[in-house]
Amino acid sequence: MRKISVIGIGAGDPDQLTVQAIREIERARVFFVLDKGAAKRDLVDLRERVLEQYGRDYRVVHAEDPARDRRPADYRAAVADWHRLRVALYTKLIRDELPEDGHGAFLVWGDPALYDSTITLVEAVAEQVEIEYSVIPGISSVSTLAARHRIPLNRIGEPVQFTTGRRLAEGLPGDAVVLLDANCTFQQYYGEDLDIFWGAYLGTEDEILLSGPIAEVGPEIEQRRAEARAEKGWIMDTYLLRASQDPSG
Amino acid sequence: MRKISVIGIGAGDPDQLTVQAIREIERARVFFVLDKGAAKRDLVDLRERVLEQYGRDYRVVHAEDPARDRRPADYRAAVADWHRLRVALYTKLIRDELPEDGHGAFLVWGDPALYDSTITLVEAVAEQVEIEYSVIPGISSVSTLAARHRIPLNRIGEPVQFTTGRRLAEGLPGDAVVLLDANCTFQQYYGEDLDIFWGAYLGTEDEILLSGPIAEVGPEIEQRRAEARAEKGWIMDTYLLRASQDPSG
Repeated sequence: MRKISVIGIGAGDPDQLTVQAIREIERARVFFVLDKGAAKRDLVDLRERVLEQYGRDYRVVHAEDPARDRRPADYRAAVADWHRLRVALYTKLIRDELPEDGHGAFLVWGDPALYDSTITLVEAVAEQVEIEYSVIPGISSVSTLAARHRIPLNRIGEPVQFTTGRRLAEGLPGDAVVLLDANCTFQQYYGEDLDIFWGAYLGTEDEILLSGPIAEVGPEIEQRRAEARAEKGWIMDTYLLRASQDPSG
Repeated sequence: MRKISVIGIGAGDPDQLTVQAIREIERARVFFVLDKGAAKRDLVDLRERVLEQYGRDYRVVHAEDPARDRRPADYRAAVADWHRLRVALYTKLIRDELPEDGHGAFLVWGDPALYDSTITLVEAVAEQVEIEYSVIPGISSVSTLAARHRIPLNRIGEPVQFTTGRRLAEGLPGDAVVLLDANCTFQQYYGEDLDIFWGAYLGTEDEILLSGPIAEVGPEIEQRRAEARAEKGWIMDTYLLRASQDPSG
């Protein structure tokens, strides 16, 4: 049977690979790599560095990810349409490019379990073509954010919500880790008594870290983010919003 | 200056160590290990296996973690008291056992950023004795749970809350990852249209995975959990509660 591994490779530093991920990369022979346009070229390069270092006797199958409407009227419907196109594409690629007893893999930045569609994609492909698949967890950008700021994500015994910029715009759900926020939605909360811990290009040489009371640091984050994005052509960032702690306690 | 590394070592499988964590273990010379009584003996053994495999020219400093009131009237006050005792203990250990230019480390199961007190502890120690400290992220039990069940933690574009059994008892916060739940608080939600994805001893040989509609699978989890806990003397488990998905979609 065809085998597919979904391998988390960490937030951007190849040294965040686990021993388990390295072994799986050594075993797989076909890697499916999405080219998402020039903007993400750096990320594809990093992935190729990982393959050059750890891959054995492998082949890379490049594919152009279907275009996605980034500002759709109906977000869920647009995601569902995009998902269908990708399932069709990957089903075809796996049928055409992976021998019937072959071992293919997807390398996923961060942790495949957090705000990434690869697991869902492969699950849907498995309904179209017989495959056995497994998931190797990775260090997420969120874990890296916390480690670099040297903070826990949760306050002691307290909950923390993982959410998106889109959802944050609807209201603050308590302490929150925010992903996929292209619009600096944290701006909405400059009036609140919050600290922000922000990071971009986490785990890479271009890493930027900023933290402090949101009203003070927020505008600086907006500016640094816009500059970095303009300079590199893309940005990946995430942040934690947390109720300010009593300085005495 | 003394150097302290807080190193995430994954959920229980030594192969979840990252290259970065291995390098840091190779560099550190003194490892501070807490003995939490016979119940956690297996965990200490696993940690020692990691050290035997990757440590170089190292020394282990064992300490008895201060006792903690597990069912206090005032949870926050009890945690704060316990925290103070630990800070005093570790400040003393680091002063006494680590040379002034020494490199010490704490090995933390899972990810130090999630429901673990080591970062907060070391931050407080740094106010008592001059140290330089850093955090190496690890694969959490939560990432491992998702990987083993081959599911994303969040539904597409949806938030997911990381919370504790204690907090879950107060109400369901939407899709939730629950940690530190000794009381099977999910029982409260057998009447809801939820799926549960549960895992114990994740990443180890004793791993148990169960999933399905909560009303069906919940009682089985309760039973398996009680049996496993009785047999081994301890249990570490976590789970995801998620609104049941429309089977057509």
